[in-house]
Amino acid sequence: MRGTVLYAPGDVRVEDRPEPTIEQPTDAVLRLAATCVCGSDLWPYRGIEKIDGPSPMGHEYVGIVEEVGRDVSTIKPGQFVVGSFFASDNTCEICRAGYQTHCVNRQPGAATGGQAQRLRVPLADGTLVATPGMPDDDLIPSLLAASDVLGTGWFAAVAAQAGPGTTVAVVGDGAVGLLGVLAATQLGAERIIMMSRHEPRQRLALEFGATDIVTERGDEGVARIKDLSNGLGAHSVIEAVGTQESMMQAIRATRAGGHVGYVGVSHGVSLPGEELFFSGVHLHGGPAPVRRFLPDLIDRICHREIDPGKVFDLELPLEQAAEGYRAMDERRAIKTLLRP
Amino acid sequence: MRGTVLYAPGDVRVEDRPEPTIEQPTDAVLRLAATCVCGSDLWPYRGIEKIDGPSPMGHEYVGIVEEVGRDVSTIKPGQFVVGSFFASDNTCEICRAGYQTHCVNRQPGAATGGQAQRLRVPLADGTLVATPGMPDDDLIPSLLAASDVLGTGWFAAVAAQAGPGTTVAVVGDGAVGLLGVLAATQLGAERIIMMSRHEPRQRLALEFGATDIVTERGDEGVARIKDLSNGLGAHSVIEAVGTQESMMQAIRATRAGGHVGYVGVSHGVSLPGEELFFSGVHLHGGPAPVRRFLPDLIDRICHREIDPGKVFDLELPLEQAAEGYRAMDERRAIKTLLRP
Repeated sequence: MRGTVLYAPGDVRVEDRPEPTIEQPTDAVLRLAATCVCGSDLWPYRGIEKIDGPSPMGHEYVGIVEEVGRDVSTIKPGQFVVGSFFASDNTCEICRAGYQTHCVNRQPGAATGGQAQRLRVPLADGTLVATPGMPDDDLIPSLLAASDVLGTGWFAAVAAQAGPGTTVAVVGDGAVGLLGVLAATQLGAERIIMMSRHEPRQRLALEFGATDIVTERGDEGVARIKDLSNGLGAHSVIEAVGTQESMMQAIRATRAGGHVGYVGVSHGVSLPGEELFFSGVHLHGGPAPVRRFLPDLIDRICHREIDPGKVFDLELPLEQAAEGYRAMDERRAIKTLLRP
Repeated sequence: MRGTVLYAPGDVRVEDRPEPTIEQPTDAVLRLAATCVCGSDLWPYRGIEKIDGPSPMGHEYVGIVEEVGRDVSTIKPGQFVVGSFFASDNTCEICRAGYQTHCVNRQPGAATGGQAQRLRVPLADGTLVATPGMPDDDLIPSLLAASDVLGTGWFAAVAAQAGPGTTVAVVGDGAVGLLGVLAATQLGAERIIMMSRHEPRQRLALEFGATDIVTERGDEGVARIKDLSNGLGAHSVIEAVGTQESMMQAIRATRAGGHVGYVGVSHGVSLPGEELFFSGVHLHGGPAPVRRFLPDLIDRICHREIDPGKVFDLELPLEQAAEGYRAMDERRAIKTLLRP
């Protein structure tokens, strides 16, 4: 089969790769309907995160089950399924508490690389969620979004306790931040402030339910958020970047007693204890337990209540994955969908 | 009147100080029944926190209202009241959300120094809570504890979401940590693990409801907590020290999805973003909004449901404040009560 491999910063290739097979009795093998490039794929693509030799890429996927191991009981061949970036048993104490990304048996969810034609997924029963019947083709981008960026934005909004009566601010106008806006809207937030300087992203944020756009950054951005929230700061701030600057912007834009939901993968962040202490905020985040939200998200998508697939503003055949990476790296595209 | 002043590290004196008077129409002046030395007073006493010239000390107090300003309407002369270390209006949006220590009008709660015979308290209506009638003398230590250490330990337990079915670990065996144990017990925690090497503090922890004592520290302490919680870490960890080591111990002893409630005033702490991100814990803390809990705590004390005053294992006349500081500094006393 064909699959994407990162050889070095900037060097992504699509090449012949071994066909995935059932290796463990709890595995499934999928034929992928769609996959995509993640903001977090850009960290190694840009050389900020080191890779250890050629690395199969991709961890967002939807597709049809081709084969399952002998211990797989709920997932069946022929089903259309959505998975996510960690495989989890969904039965351990941590999973039952809703933290499947920290499952005691967790494994990479896209074991053989998700930007490919076919994929082996471990712990299939715990990891995959089937759609009710075969989805219409136009729903596939939204179901693919649920696999990571929607689930992650949703978790951030939940971690930030976005809800009725709250003012929510969003730091980061990538796909996750934009879908954090969508999640906050669905969760009933009263006011949703997107921090963005990019016109197409601002437009999509407004489509997803943002009520205000703030173009200032850093201290000026924080001051603008306070202006928009009685001088107090937002109740809920979604952090979807992962840098020192964005984390401090998020913490400072939150009122005392408010909540920061942070999902940007931390790179070189160090939080000053005293400032955090005296801020009085709640901090929660990390790798999103997408699995917790998948049944609900699939339901909302299949009922056409939400259209998170709009974050894909570039669609390419898998063979052109390199151009998909370049477009995101240069911020020409918000997110690239790849058709295997 | 007589009051305590810190002149330099290790140099605490009781001396004649100006009589406090009503300065603002929202002030009250109290005649103090009891006051005490706080663990946080030891930071400047030890020279770790710099002072800017001679500093009146103390911020924990109970006493009888002598006089109120013309705008004070609910607090009356003759009432026995409990206050805390920040004065708050208790009406702003932040106060109504339960974060009175971050009140938009907050001021020091013990404006003229709480280790004294009399005290001016700003924003009396918002800050002070009256007991139902004049309390029995033997309740005074417990009411005094409510003024800070009990309120702070309680907040830590609430921030850590201690409750039915939870395993709680407590880092820090000072008065706040010990009262965190008491709070966790009252909140219904199933298992409460106190980390302590000091026999008298271990004993008091057990009296307050601790089910286990762990004497190991650092990585070994974390490993012991995991041993006691299915290998996962505690659901709830109370941090009541404020150092880098204690914060990391608290974070590492918490399971993914669990909660750290941190109330030790941070000194030189810097939290590594990546470790925090991948830990998946909730972090909440800061200066405790004691005022939120005072009505409930006073009620529990007056009904003799709890006896937090047991943390005072040394009682001295105010004139001997210096010995009270020394005893705590040398860990000969858990907490010193001073009778003005």
